[in-house]
Amino acid sequence: MYRRPSSQIDAALDRSSTSAKSMASRRTSPLATRMSHIEPFHVMSVMRRADALEVQGRSITYMVIGEPDFSSAEPIVQAGIAALQAGKTRYAPDLGLPALREALARSYAPDIAVDAERVVVTPGSSGALQLVFATMLSPGDEVLLADPGYPCNRHFVRLFEGVPVSIAVDASTSYQLTADLIRRHWTPRTVAVLVGSPSNPVGSVIPDAEMERIARAVHELGGILIVDEIYHGLVYDTTLSSAVGAPGRVFVVNSFSKYYGMTGWRVGWLVGPQEYIAPIEKLVQNIFIAASTPAQYAALEALKPAARAELERRRQLFLERRDYLLPALRRLGFGIPVEPQGAFYIYADCSHFTSDSQAFALALLEEAGVAIAPGLDFGCYRCKRHVRISYANSLENLQEGVRRIGAFLAGSRNGRMRKEDTMFPHPVAPLTRPAPAWY
Amino acid sequence: MYRRPSSQIDAALDRSSTSAKSMASRRTSPLATRMSHIEPFHVMSVMRRADALEVQGRSITYMVIGEPDFSSAEPIVQAGIAALQAGKTRYAPDLGLPALREALARSYAPDIAVDAERVVVTPGSSGALQLVFATMLSPGDEVLLADPGYPCNRHFVRLFEGVPVSIAVDASTSYQLTADLIRRHWTPRTVAVLVGSPSNPVGSVIPDAEMERIARAVHELGGILIVDEIYHGLVYDTTLSSAVGAPGRVFVVNSFSKYYGMTGWRVGWLVGPQEYIAPIEKLVQNIFIAASTPAQYAALEALKPAARAELERRRQLFLERRDYLLPALRRLGFGIPVEPQGAFYIYADCSHFTSDSQAFALALLEEAGVAIAPGLDFGCYRCKRHVRISYANSLENLQEGVRRIGAFLAGSRNGRMRKEDTMFPHPVAPLTRPAPAWY
Repeated sequence: MYRRPSSQIDAALDRSSTSAKSMASRRTSPLATRMSHIEPFHVMSVMRRADALEVQGRSITYMVIGEPDFSSAEPIVQAGIAALQAGKTRYAPDLGLPALREALARSYAPDIAVDAERVVVTPGSSGALQLVFATMLSPGDEVLLADPGYPCNRHFVRLFEGVPVSIAVDASTSYQLTADLIRRHWTPRTVAVLVGSPSNPVGSVIPDAEMERIARAVHELGGILIVDEIYHGLVYDTTLSSAVGAPGRVFVVNSFSKYYGMTGWRVGWLVGPQEYIAPIEKLVQNIFIAASTPAQYAALEALKPAARAELERRRQLFLERRDYLLPALRRLGFGIPVEPQGAFYIYADCSHFTSDSQAFALALLEEAGVAIAPGLDFGCYRCKRHVRISYANSLENLQEGVRRIGAFLAGSRNGRMRKEDTMFPHPVAPLTRPAPAWY
Repeated sequence: MYRRPSSQIDAALDRSSTSAKSMASRRTSPLATRMSHIEPFHVMSVMRRADALEVQGRSITYMVIGEPDFSSAEPIVQAGIAALQAGKTRYAPDLGLPALREALARSYAPDIAVDAERVVVTPGSSGALQLVFATMLSPGDEVLLADPGYPCNRHFVRLFEGVPVSIAVDASTSYQLTADLIRRHWTPRTVAVLVGSPSNPVGSVIPDAEMERIARAVHELGGILIVDEIYHGLVYDTTLSSAVGAPGRVFVVNSFSKYYGMTGWRVGWLVGPQEYIAPIEKLVQNIFIAASTPAQYAALEALKPAARAELERRRQLFLERRDYLLPALRRLGFGIPVEPQGAFYIYADCSHFTSDSQAFALALLEEAGVAIAPGLDFGCYRCKRHVRISYANSLENLQEGVRRIGAFLAGSRNGRMRKEDTMFPHPVAPLTRPAPAWY
């Protein structure tokens, strides 16, 4: 909309401004309508209480955080320092340092040939998801997502006036969408599907063959497939191809935060269809300018062999922790029907102990000093009977956490803690479905 | 929207999926409707051509860039290095490092008391503007902006389905909105006004008394005032208070990029009304997680005396450059009715030479090797008769640029370059309005 300069405003506008004034203050606290659909992280109430307890001198075992428990690997840190010493403190090119885009493109070789032109470096994978959704979503457009899933995804859709359509998934599909589910839920308003592999909060993966089926289904339906590969480097017992090579219109979103251990630097990337790069560049210029320059130099080093060796060592540590924590939690009575094959989370059914996982998480913190994430952060479906337990902590701390959870559950069962009688009033049976054949 | 799990889908959904399939591919290239309203930076065509010419061995004088021509000051760089050496590479708190929020709040003292709770550290001021508009704008809400103005502002509004209302301003108000203009253009759909002081592209400021009137007007109208203070430290010949202390609902957006010379680090901040901080925190968690951690430690140092001394030295350099460039451009025949008092830009009327400032900028680059920004990047109003010339370059380079522009104009006037005859077909008289009394 465009208005003429003051010298050319006619009397009509002066009149209208009088009526405008009479309309003033009609909104007492102007908040966008979207804000009522965007939720805070419920785990923040756990985190805030944990902080308060620590200030009081309590020992807290953290099994809650979506962040590796390491500082960035030394070669990465040294590359950041070298960039700063070399004065690399000015704006980077909008789509990223050419050398980093090239290195990221090459990182998919030899399996998949990716043109560096299709790679966009972003301020974290959050920035990548913003770009992808802002570029494709008109108001009312639907995006299919798995529930449970990473909570921000549906909020990104809502941010740009799209409609997130959460599809309940369970152990029968390893808590993942499938080509079949996508076809069944597709409507004329659907424009895109987002899947995560490995997923947060479950840590389950979509095997290559199913990803291929998903991509073909979305392509046939005329939609766009977005694959969140943020935990892609953190895979155990299996191999996983990138969806970069899948058929149709596919966006792959990735990050230097998790496998590369660079959370605080804020660098991610996307690989998109060639025809979307020009619109995305336009958006980057307007809404980000560029990702952090020193962080991009550090990220470049993260792709090289010296850092890689340390990152692989860390991946082995995550594997050891998973292999400790998974059977330990099962022994305690948590229902974990699908073995997590990636990321650093276990999505556990706690309905053997409670019908309110948020109250359970807070009681566990209060009574036993263990911080975990309530299921409510990851969707609606059966969220009150699930919690997410992170193994981004040392083996020693995880052992202590398991000991504390065990003592808490024993105390709760023995009726020692009166509070639990009202907090966990309706114990329900744990999930027992077997994992599907393709898993 | 929420869908039941696959096991509970009824036959109706299966039927609808058949009709969905027949609707597939109805959109051949799904781009959001908003994308047709968001423009790329037109200056990029100038920049790309400049790059190409440099590759060919041509010497280019850059008077185009919105970025200081210095690397970050040494104390800032050293603080970044120290943070990295100390392993500060993990997520920062969502609203920013407490020490940085405190230091930013204190930076408004003793003039204005600001509670650190109202300060949010963001990924650049771009991040701050995203948060502000996403939090307040429902689809169709109008935001008043000055034309000419920073192009991204109207695109941020459009990004969140708001309607940017560009109000043409000229020298009669120092190219700024006024309380009177705001009252005249306010409608029942208007929810906010954005002003920039010092402004980009003009470098004009809104004097404290007028800012107070603007804030009171917006408050009376029941709206929100957003003040872009990104160039706030770069003010010459005058003093300027922050609008942080202005009455009503006021958001102030600022950045470590310009005065603090930290463009590539990507750190900015906002100070908002207390009641907006919780909604904004919810958004930060979802769309950014946090601003870059090492960059926040560096920014903390930027507020301390050692860095300040160097930043003030640089401000003096900008002042010297302005004092050279302004009369030099006027002598060449550019119309600059308002003396810029801040930032590092001169918004110049080139209608004495051309009726198409974009063609003029490209011809100046091609023939004389000087890169400047066309007015089209800053709005619609009289944009074809204006260019933005940046003095974020050394005095020597600016002198060379002026020499080149002079030779180009002389050649053009003498009819030496046939091309210009068609490129500048309709010379029009330059603006001659005097600056207003309050300026």
